[in-house]
Amino acid sequence: MQNDTIAAIATPQGVGGVGIIRVSGSDAFSLVAPLLRRPSREDIPPVPPTHQLTYRVIIDPATQEILDEVLVAFMRAPHTYTCEDVVEIQGHGGPLILRRILRSVLAQGARMANPGEFTLRAFLNGRLDLAQAEAVMDLIGSQTEVGQRLAMQQLRGKLSDQVEHARTSMLGAIARIEASIDFPEDDIPTPQAEELLPFIEEAQRQIARLLAGSEQGRLYRQGLRTAIIGRPNVGKSSLLNALLRIERAIVTPIAGTTRDTVEEIANLRGIPLHLIDTAGITPTQDPVEQLGVQRSRLAAETADVILHVFDGATALTEQDWQVAQELRAMGYGEKREGQAARRPVVVVINKADCEQVIDVAAIQSFWQDASLVQTSTLTGEGLEALENTLAELVQAGNVSGNESVLITSARHQEALRRGAEHLNAAILSLGQKVPLDFVSIDLRAAYDALGEVTGETASEDLLDRIFSEFCIGK
Amino acid sequence: MQNDTIAAIATPQGVGGVGIIRVSGSDAFSLVAPLLRRPSREDIPPVPPTHQLTYRVIIDPATQEILDEVLVAFMRAPHTYTCEDVVEIQGHGGPLILRRILRSVLAQGARMANPGEFTLRAFLNGRLDLAQAEAVMDLIGSQTEVGQRLAMQQLRGKLSDQVEHARTSMLGAIARIEASIDFPEDDIPTPQAEELLPFIEEAQRQIARLLAGSEQGRLYRQGLRTAIIGRPNVGKSSLLNALLRIERAIVTPIAGTTRDTVEEIANLRGIPLHLIDTAGITPTQDPVEQLGVQRSRLAAETADVILHVFDGATALTEQDWQVAQELRAMGYGEKREGQAARRPVVVVINKADCEQVIDVAAIQSFWQDASLVQTSTLTGEGLEALENTLAELVQAGNVSGNESVLITSARHQEALRRGAEHLNAAILSLGQKVPLDFVSIDLRAAYDALGEVTGETASEDLLDRIFSEFCIGK
Repeated sequence: MQNDTIAAIATPQGVGGVGIIRVSGSDAFSLVAPLLRRPSREDIPPVPPTHQLTYRVIIDPATQEILDEVLVAFMRAPHTYTCEDVVEIQGHGGPLILRRILRSVLAQGARMANPGEFTLRAFLNGRLDLAQAEAVMDLIGSQTEVGQRLAMQQLRGKLSDQVEHARTSMLGAIARIEASIDFPEDDIPTPQAEELLPFIEEAQRQIARLLAGSEQGRLYRQGLRTAIIGRPNVGKSSLLNALLRIERAIVTPIAGTTRDTVEEIANLRGIPLHLIDTAGITPTQDPVEQLGVQRSRLAAETADVILHVFDGATALTEQDWQVAQELRAMGYGEKREGQAARRPVVVVINKADCEQVIDVAAIQSFWQDASLVQTSTLTGEGLEALENTLAELVQAGNVSGNESVLITSARHQEALRRGAEHLNAAILSLGQKVPLDFVSIDLRAAYDALGEVTGETASEDLLDRIFSEFCIGK
Repeated sequence: MQNDTIAAIATPQGVGGVGIIRVSGSDAFSLVAPLLRRPSREDIPPVPPTHQLTYRVIIDPATQEILDEVLVAFMRAPHTYTCEDVVEIQGHGGPLILRRILRSVLAQGARMANPGEFTLRAFLNGRLDLAQAEAVMDLIGSQTEVGQRLAMQQLRGKLSDQVEHARTSMLGAIARIEASIDFPEDDIPTPQAEELLPFIEEAQRQIARLLAGSEQGRLYRQGLRTAIIGRPNVGKSSLLNALLRIERAIVTPIAGTTRDTVEEIANLRGIPLHLIDTAGITPTQDPVEQLGVQRSRLAAETADVILHVFDGATALTEQDWQVAQELRAMGYGEKREGQAARRPVVVVINKADCEQVIDVAAIQSFWQDASLVQTSTLTGEGLEALENTLAELVQAGNVSGNESVLITSARHQEALRRGAEHLNAAILSLGQKVPLDFVSIDLRAAYDALGEVTGETASEDLLDRIFSEFCIGK
């Protein structure tokens, strides 16, 4: 099945100047060529030289009707995106016209490509490893320049190189153990722990370095989900607008999945800040309002950080305390042993331009570990401080510099953690003088865990899961 | 200004596999080349052969950061879209990444292209005439296959050919008159009316043939605005859904410009049927409802045809009559002398599956010229008949076959009408033995009017107006 010829519209949906239909597979040339004509002649012209953009008209094979004037490139394997024969058809960028060209290609016998199938083929044909293939989607979806840079590094193979580096270290230990086990008759001396440890510890250091920035890397890629919570009329929506105004140019409105929470993306020093304005958490009898409250609660529960907003110009109300208690019940502001609070709250005392009557001490004694910022969405006071506070929260876990490779994928993080655990087990076994073949099992497991990052040891299920998240045409 | 180098993202906005940045102008090559690197080397590679898709990485000139891996084609004038040197950069189809590549090209000294500026240059450089340039936008925006076919015909120059044919006929008469006026000393005999008339009448016939299908052509391009009007609860929204279900695959939901009228596009035998579901026209005190009614009225006033929907299972109400009278006041259902009603009403008696109690005769005596269809959105009864009725309304004015060139643009229609009037005036003058230089003025005016279609006599204002409606990147 893998060599059948697939086709899809590769450009974004919608109306634009140009759109591309991509065809890949062993029959790509022979399927597309009969659809093309020279503009002033009726015969089927020969296939142009490889990678040459050539002007043609394309016809509907059923009716011979001219569908569009196109630039077409026939690209001979293996120097193509998929390492297969690829044809790219550039037509006018209208949705109907591109669909009709695609339909003609399918009528010739091509199959509609699955999401990510072009990139899957590039992976299966060895042009990209799995981490690089994943970087393609990250690159396309990146929302800030930092996120894009990390994806590009990964696509260029920097992460794969470091992972391979760690695997090579492991292999040093594995090879020594296995040689002594597999060929006892060759009198290879059984390696000593002192001989193996340097390899294992070097691999450990490399994994630790990669894992160090992984929480921050994930944030650069996925962004920081920041829910703006508070009782009604404390200025939540104005705060949203004020934070967006700061970098309005790269703000992207996202059509809400829910009707009453508004979600926008701001750029917080390279981190996509997903700001979620909520309807407020208050008890209500109105069924429509109940729905809104329910959605606010969901937003609060799934956020990385909460901005708990108060109105500085009025005294604390019962509702303020209800909101605070509800957030506390969700686990916000809880100090976990040893580490910074995992679900941080930032207290925002809004309306700083008015006379302040709120009992700040009472709030501080409730949200003991929370940062507190006084803001005025009217004068802009405190907004930069609020941004600084959010940026510090993100960078708190960061030990690696900006220039190093950052793990951005939870999948990679998980595989590296698993690898590190197996290495720890191997070191422990070595210390306890456990027979070396048991140590070898742990080292192999670590080696395979890291192989999942680059896809060397990836299962078909994993591949399916990864590539199904791609868009069609990539 | 015309030779400066312009750049824009040419593919639709949004997320996709591939996106294209197009650069055109005399400096296109020298601006883009320094941004490119071979994947494994740091030097600036030479410009590849023309039209060759070549794999490169592209950098940010300020930081030397690698922005993306791209396929790039340098296309040497004049065999390009604009007839200028063109560079096409294919990057990954993410909005941020494409903007960053574009920004790098602009930083090199290119200017952001205006809407339609690439096509404007193709026109100014003589690769397309104006009718062909307009066809580019029609092609991209076409919503049905018939509309696309008409746009393609126009892009391939069929309309321009016929217009030029008519102009050549006029020129036959003009040349004979002007020769006798300009060179009296050469003893060229003053042409007689019998000698001139065949040229003028041939041009008239050609214009008449083009104008014959122009109303239908306009509908194929712009679609038929069909407002579904009626008092509340007669089944307007179900009718909308039922009509959409028939060709659900190519239905496109359009984000409403107004909150309470819903607009969808169905395909009625090649004609885009813009169905507008309205809130109903009823007097109300509620300010929000008043807004809805106001929008329904606007939809009714700007429609090409009204579906006036009644509930067959209940007796006529005062509200039914109010709606009817309001539509009548807008000029619907009025018979104009000589022709079919220009603003037709189709009466839809819905709920045909229930026992019918409505007074059909009373409706018929009010809407005397209206077609009447009984439908059930539950059983599907009458829906095909309703479609047939709408299709007949569209085809009523059609005298040209499907294969002929159809005028789809109001601008072309207007220019052709003006041309026809000047020809009529010329024939009248010839009959009245008016001096030939006056006849010549009318013939020249007709000649110029038709020249506006192909752009030979188009003013700068007209060009600005036409190309400003293009999308950026085309």
